[in-house]
Amino acid sequence: MVRAEGARRSTRPARRRLRAPRPEEPDEQGTTDRLGSRSVELAKFYQGKIETVPKVPVRSLADFSVWYTPGIAAVSRAIGSEPELSFELTGRWNTIAIVTDGSRVLGLGDIGPEAALPVMEGKALLFKYLGGVDAIPVPIRADSPEAIISTVERIAPAFGGINLEDIASPKCFEVLEELTRRLPIPVWHDDQLGTAAATVAGLLNALKLTDRDIRHVRTALLGAGAANLVTARLLIALGHDPRRLSLVDQRGILDPEREDLDVLRFSNRWKYDLALKTRGGGRRGDAAEAVREADVLLAASTPDPNTVKPSWIRSMAPGPIVFALANPVPEIWPSVAREAGAAIVATGRGDFPNQVNNSLVFPAVFRGVLDARARRIPDEIVLVAARELAEYAAQHGLSPEHIIPTMEEHEVFPRVAAAVATRSVELGIARRKRSFEEFLELASARMGRTRAQASALYRAGFTLPMPDEPTPKERT
Amino acid sequence: MVRAEGARRSTRPARRRLRAPRPEEPDEQGTTDRLGSRSVELAKFYQGKIETVPKVPVRSLADFSVWYTPGIAAVSRAIGSEPELSFELTGRWNTIAIVTDGSRVLGLGDIGPEAALPVMEGKALLFKYLGGVDAIPVPIRADSPEAIISTVERIAPAFGGINLEDIASPKCFEVLEELTRRLPIPVWHDDQLGTAAATVAGLLNALKLTDRDIRHVRTALLGAGAANLVTARLLIALGHDPRRLSLVDQRGILDPEREDLDVLRFSNRWKYDLALKTRGGGRRGDAAEAVREADVLLAASTPDPNTVKPSWIRSMAPGPIVFALANPVPEIWPSVAREAGAAIVATGRGDFPNQVNNSLVFPAVFRGVLDARARRIPDEIVLVAARELAEYAAQHGLSPEHIIPTMEEHEVFPRVAAAVATRSVELGIARRKRSFEEFLELASARMGRTRAQASALYRAGFTLPMPDEPTPKERT
Repeated sequence: MVRAEGARRSTRPARRRLRAPRPEEPDEQGTTDRLGSRSVELAKFYQGKIETVPKVPVRSLADFSVWYTPGIAAVSRAIGSEPELSFELTGRWNTIAIVTDGSRVLGLGDIGPEAALPVMEGKALLFKYLGGVDAIPVPIRADSPEAIISTVERIAPAFGGINLEDIASPKCFEVLEELTRRLPIPVWHDDQLGTAAATVAGLLNALKLTDRDIRHVRTALLGAGAANLVTARLLIALGHDPRRLSLVDQRGILDPEREDLDVLRFSNRWKYDLALKTRGGGRRGDAAEAVREADVLLAASTPDPNTVKPSWIRSMAPGPIVFALANPVPEIWPSVAREAGAAIVATGRGDFPNQVNNSLVFPAVFRGVLDARARRIPDEIVLVAARELAEYAAQHGLSPEHIIPTMEEHEVFPRVAAAVATRSVELGIARRKRSFEEFLELASARMGRTRAQASALYRAGFTLPMPDEPTPKERT
Repeated sequence: MVRAEGARRSTRPARRRLRAPRPEEPDEQGTTDRLGSRSVELAKFYQGKIETVPKVPVRSLADFSVWYTPGIAAVSRAIGSEPELSFELTGRWNTIAIVTDGSRVLGLGDIGPEAALPVMEGKALLFKYLGGVDAIPVPIRADSPEAIISTVERIAPAFGGINLEDIASPKCFEVLEELTRRLPIPVWHDDQLGTAAATVAGLLNALKLTDRDIRHVRTALLGAGAANLVTARLLIALGHDPRRLSLVDQRGILDPEREDLDVLRFSNRWKYDLALKTRGGGRRGDAAEAVREADVLLAASTPDPNTVKPSWIRSMAPGPIVFALANPVPEIWPSVAREAGAAIVATGRGDFPNQVNNSLVFPAVFRGVLDARARRIPDEIVLVAARELAEYAAQHGLSPEHIIPTMEEHEVFPRVAAAVATRSVELGIARRKRSFEEFLELASARMGRTRAQASALYRAGFTLPMPDEPTPKERT
């Protein structure tokens, strides 16, 4: 992907080459290219990643007199007199739209809605496979935040939730806020809330492991995009002193004296508000200045392993926590960060320990809010998801290499879902009230069903095996 | 459903009661109520009629590196540089949106998008089950034709086609015309094109059976809504003399001298145009006047069996053709029409012979245009579907009780699909060129796969049996 050149070995300092090969040293560009070719090849073969199937039996065409006219009129009439019944009498309760305007797709920038579609299909697959959620890709052609907002508002009657995706910052903030205000269903922007929740989950455990109290730590956030602005907001909600929190964008630390602040007030009021609230964390200047003596560095910025310098890590408080979350290449290689003194390192990648992965979050959060028929997703819900994730990891053995569950730890998904659903009930935003145990059972059953169904379709030959691999029978 | 009271036996003339009971005399209201209660009961149980499933294998979470990031970026990049590739590298080619504003849902009127959702779900089920098409219900909240148009235009990048549904006339005409003009994908309004195509199919065979030439017949169209306005247009395209065609609305025959014509010019230019073109078919006055000496009566008006009087039938040319298409209750009972002299009678109902059913049309037409990746659906395509339907019925034994295939005659669907796809190629609007035989094979395979998949899901227990019926195992 873009800028992955930064990952090539040739850009690393020569002296490092003398050591044994690092796990992160394989040919990054080669791997990316290989996966990319394979994706294109398989996209041509499968032509889509999800499809619709009947959820009701059709024994003969006569059954359509209840699935369709004339019987169905009675269902419409019932919902007509009480629209909330659409959550009980249709698939709305489990169906969400994955909405993007294609303005910030992966690392590819503004490539438009058609080009965003494959990514949304992949996300829909993840939603179903991990969360049991029926997710429909809806990339839209929109030239303004208001166009996105009004389109989503118009199509909302079919959906129990909206997942915003790959929308450029700062318009993603306005879109999320406004839709949350206007719609009676949960709206989520994964690049803001999913990443922030996973980050907070990992950070809570990292603080615990290094015996730090969130109320006293100093944190530098490198990058002031969708994820870090929300992470900052959540940290403050958790008791982090805003005056010990330095947000850094391309122009340096965000402080109220910065020349561009009057412009930001109108172009990005979320950044502006945090500048006022944090006052630069008491610092002014560049990234190095923000990091100096900090306990925590949360980088969500440029996918280039030379973005964060080892010297910055060395300037931090003893035993610092370093999250280098850029994808596909972290801002500093984990081994380099550890050599420079980092006590705990996390990245966005699955091939290193401590993957801060929003796939741990969104399927479970949606499972939870959908099961509770929740009306929205306030920060309390995001935080409860983060806490549940952190607690699960803690219960399964906290270590500097295990501060957050891995994707293989399946059981965490229904746990997070049930915690989210239960909190929705407590907050009074749930249409459906159940206990934690009941929600846990609902979520487990639904997630289990989806995987079993996917296997059954594969075994029966309705999902084709990959073209160059043995058919299910051949593999016994 | 609404106005079904008209079907009650008590409203029928007393002398008819002396005869043996007619097949159409069971308690209509009772049947409708029973089907309605069953629909509501099953809607509560199933909570949705379709769901999404993976179309690709997921053998382990590692597979998501090709279905999603990082591999998928290469697919997005390919489509970004060539948007047409979205038809080859995603599910777009087989995915359509079922769009309504809920302004004319069944006989229920303007009940809004939430209340329209169950009907759209039923339609999506039909699309998949009969046509192998992945159809997504998208009821939208829109207060103007332009709101519908702009919303559909914005969400179109995800879809290979748009099926408009249950939109009030005349705004449905504007919406269909404008979207057909703006979008590079087929747009269809079933209440216009589907019903008109099925009507024309049946009529072609009725004319053949009664040895009539379309160029010389006189036709009365009772009702000037979505279906009949298009039927009139198609008949004229087939050679029907417009001056022998009388369109009748609530105010009588549409002729250029009618007082409201200046208003119609702006409120409904489709009606206005046909008034000028037909000049009332040389008639002025009421429905009875339009029907007098006509060879054909096509009624698509009020669901009340007393709408069309037996005396009108008696006033028609000898051996007339009568289509009474209102649902759920025809404008005249078939036996009454036959007694009054009708040679051939068709209705919209499956429990009488000659069901003019748009379910014969839309799954096949979409299968065809999607397989050809067609850019739009001109009238030539609608007519080829009608002709193929008619021809199929003719090949399987034409009779006054079999002028159009029944839904049980499965093999007609791929035939119509292949005819539509082939015509798209001939018209130069297909992105994908194949022979009739190749299209036939594609359509047959896809339609067969869907039914097999639905059965497999049912047998494996993923589609639950109806709550008060034995499970698949129990029924052996």
